[in-house]
Amino acid sequence: MFKKILIANRGEIALRVICACRELGIKTVAVWSEADEHSLHVRFADEDVCIGPPRSAESYLHVPAIISAAEITGADAIHPGYGFLSESAYLAEVCEACHIKFIGPSPSVIRLMGEKSRARRAMKKAGVSTLPGSDGPVETEEDAQLIAADLGFPVIIKASNGGGGRGMRIVRSGNELSQALRTAQREAQAAFGIGDVYLEKYLEAPRHIEVQILGDEHGHVVHLGERECSVQRRHQKLIEEAPSAVITEKQRKALGKMVVDAATAVGYSSAGTFEFLMDAQNNLYFIEANTRLQVEHGVTELVTGIDIVKEQIRIAAGEPLSFTQEDVRIDGHAIECRVNAENPDTFAPSPGRVDAFSLPGGPGIRVDTFVHAEAVVPPNYDSLIAKVMSHGRTRAEAIARMRRALEMTVIEGIETSVPMHLKILADEDFQQARISTAFMERFLAAPKPSATTPVTPPAA
Amino acid sequence: MFKKILIANRGEIALRVICACRELGIKTVAVWSEADEHSLHVRFADEDVCIGPPRSAESYLHVPAIISAAEITGADAIHPGYGFLSESAYLAEVCEACHIKFIGPSPSVIRLMGEKSRARRAMKKAGVSTLPGSDGPVETEEDAQLIAADLGFPVIIKASNGGGGRGMRIVRSGNELSQALRTAQREAQAAFGIGDVYLEKYLEAPRHIEVQILGDEHGHVVHLGERECSVQRRHQKLIEEAPSAVITEKQRKALGKMVVDAATAVGYSSAGTFEFLMDAQNNLYFIEANTRLQVEHGVTELVTGIDIVKEQIRIAAGEPLSFTQEDVRIDGHAIECRVNAENPDTFAPSPGRVDAFSLPGGPGIRVDTFVHAEAVVPPNYDSLIAKVMSHGRTRAEAIARMRRALEMTVIEGIETSVPMHLKILADEDFQQARISTAFMERFLAAPKPSATTPVTPPAA
Repeated sequence: MFKKILIANRGEIALRVICACRELGIKTVAVWSEADEHSLHVRFADEDVCIGPPRSAESYLHVPAIISAAEITGADAIHPGYGFLSESAYLAEVCEACHIKFIGPSPSVIRLMGEKSRARRAMKKAGVSTLPGSDGPVETEEDAQLIAADLGFPVIIKASNGGGGRGMRIVRSGNELSQALRTAQREAQAAFGIGDVYLEKYLEAPRHIEVQILGDEHGHVVHLGERECSVQRRHQKLIEEAPSAVITEKQRKALGKMVVDAATAVGYSSAGTFEFLMDAQNNLYFIEANTRLQVEHGVTELVTGIDIVKEQIRIAAGEPLSFTQEDVRIDGHAIECRVNAENPDTFAPSPGRVDAFSLPGGPGIRVDTFVHAEAVVPPNYDSLIAKVMSHGRTRAEAIARMRRALEMTVIEGIETSVPMHLKILADEDFQQARISTAFMERFLAAPKPSATTPVTPPAA
Repeated sequence: MFKKILIANRGEIALRVICACRELGIKTVAVWSEADEHSLHVRFADEDVCIGPPRSAESYLHVPAIISAAEITGADAIHPGYGFLSESAYLAEVCEACHIKFIGPSPSVIRLMGEKSRARRAMKKAGVSTLPGSDGPVETEEDAQLIAADLGFPVIIKASNGGGGRGMRIVRSGNELSQALRTAQREAQAAFGIGDVYLEKYLEAPRHIEVQILGDEHGHVVHLGERECSVQRRHQKLIEEAPSAVITEKQRKALGKMVVDAATAVGYSSAGTFEFLMDAQNNLYFIEANTRLQVEHGVTELVTGIDIVKEQIRIAAGEPLSFTQEDVRIDGHAIECRVNAENPDTFAPSPGRVDAFSLPGGPGIRVDTFVHAEAVVPPNYDSLIAKVMSHGRTRAEAIARMRRALEMTVIEGIETSVPMHLKILADEDFQQARISTAFMERFLAAPKPSATTPVTPPAA
């Protein structure tokens, strides 16, 4: 087992990794930018190293600074968390060269999955259903028109090497295609250094379904069921849950097997997530794989009892998985609300000093946060300040628990998304699991139900 | 279902009941003494009533004040929490007379179990093993000498109507008996208004094992397995866990059936706990039953997924139990550390203003507390300020999680028992579950292991 792990991240996920390391008896090294000097992840790590100024490119994204910090402190592994360098095949390669274990899949798997159109082809070849689309990059308008005509409008243009909405364009008619293609190529070039884009059939209001897997370095892969993350705004997930309310046991089994087989085929190790869109007829189409821990991994931990971060670490240390697919049981229902430091109506960031801070406890509530009274939320990073998770025997119980937990949350001094979450949780469509990636658009346009509507008693 | 529940309590348990009520869509009424005006239970209840000065006898123990508060606010039920009036048959009777539902067993069952020597006889009659002892109150030294000679020393004298160590004397020889009997009778008279005492065989270093039950008002009783609460100081539990490391599945089933049969025989409804002592040969002897929610109910909730407080409320509303014995599954292992506002070495109370306060989250951690940064812990009540609970797949994982959780706990401004808990968790005997009610005496007398000993990696 590792003796010391450097955590190349900040915020709640750095603390989450510290929890796992402490439980495994592994020392930790925190890295921090000057904006995070007083953060709890620095306080609770065994050692810490300042790696630069607040600007991410010069600190949390700066590979030489991270590697130096690991070498100075004698760390024998690096956990990258999510975001920042977590999907950097380059960091994984440098680690390999420096004999530091990168806690994640091999550089070649990270690279394969990072090139979205290549990943799509690999998955198709491995028997995973994908959306109809171009089988590689599309360069000219002429090619794009032919493919689009074949697919039927609407289509979506996506960056081959990207993600997160950049280099992405929805096209509803042939007239729009030429302009959209050029814009997407330009955005992709700017954001990812490579202008390649590809075309896919565009689904209007799909559900976002993703499958969590764990693979060891001895060829064993298991899945931990699916999460549904349909409640999104501008491709940013707001509420995630496990399992999905619409996936049947039979479909879960088939989907899980398909993903496990494909992951095995590409030699996947560590934790990973395979993302799918689900159409109105409950057909599932692969869109991309994330070769890292997800923000929302906690809801899967709540329903399976499996500690995904500890498993990642054990796998990276060469241990075989300690359980089989048959040991994985989905127990009850879990929901996560991402509490962001932002105005709940305009979504404008709201960094600053937290005056009062009190989070709910009680049965079925888990909170992952790095914030406390008198903490300062810096303006330099993403606005996630706490993940409030609830677990119940049924989805209705998980919703009731989340509502009372958020109603009993006190955060003063900054604005947060808690009031928005309370409104979503009171929404009839959300309660009935009538959700899709179009949910938030409808929700934000509609007159709001009152967040103080009495909590509906859950079915027994 | 009830429309409005008055919570006749304070602190973390008042918040716990508010959580349950909110999840069930029931309005809440908080009551508070002048010492608790700014407490979170007052903030989060829908209504609140001041019931008197800090002195408990004039507020939280004052039945007319509680009943008036319920009548003024139109509450249709009262949840008594634990401590205070939770085992008051008198309050239960007054509630009945006022057509307010008391959330607990019937007054006659509370009264039966409150008279310890009568409860002991009733349990013996229902087939529950009890310690050898007098079958009723012992009045004269002559009778006491005869019974003690028959039992063999050591024996213990206990108050027939008491609990919590008062009116209790351990007697190791005939010479001590006369004096001990008179002292115990005097203490019992002073504490409980009735001087009756009885004799029992005294076990030297037993384990404390208790069985959680739930009974509805239609004659169904189920058990939720056992808890072990052997880590005690002066009859005050410090650390509790579920299940016990030494109870086998077979013994759990037999013990559970015995308790369920006995509870059914006396017409038990609501939540209840049957407490046993276990000798070195793993024989179990009933000592008493508590007709209320226990402080440590949360560890049972963690391993069963059953919300005991919501079940209490449903039962009181006349609903039949929604599950059967076969539905109850014990999943993993849970531990609770009671964090008290006290000096960790001298156990002297340490009330006052809390400056910094940050509690751990992450997987497998539940915290029930009423404290936050800038809260004031009043000197008037018991010193419990937070219950930190951990849940893992094994006992070793639950211990590792508790250690990292307490290591990542920040409470400044008052002293707490966190450092003491960290030392216990690092103790080899504790880790190997070599515990008994004599554990703390041995532990406090011995040189301490360092609380900063590295966390032992749990077995997989």
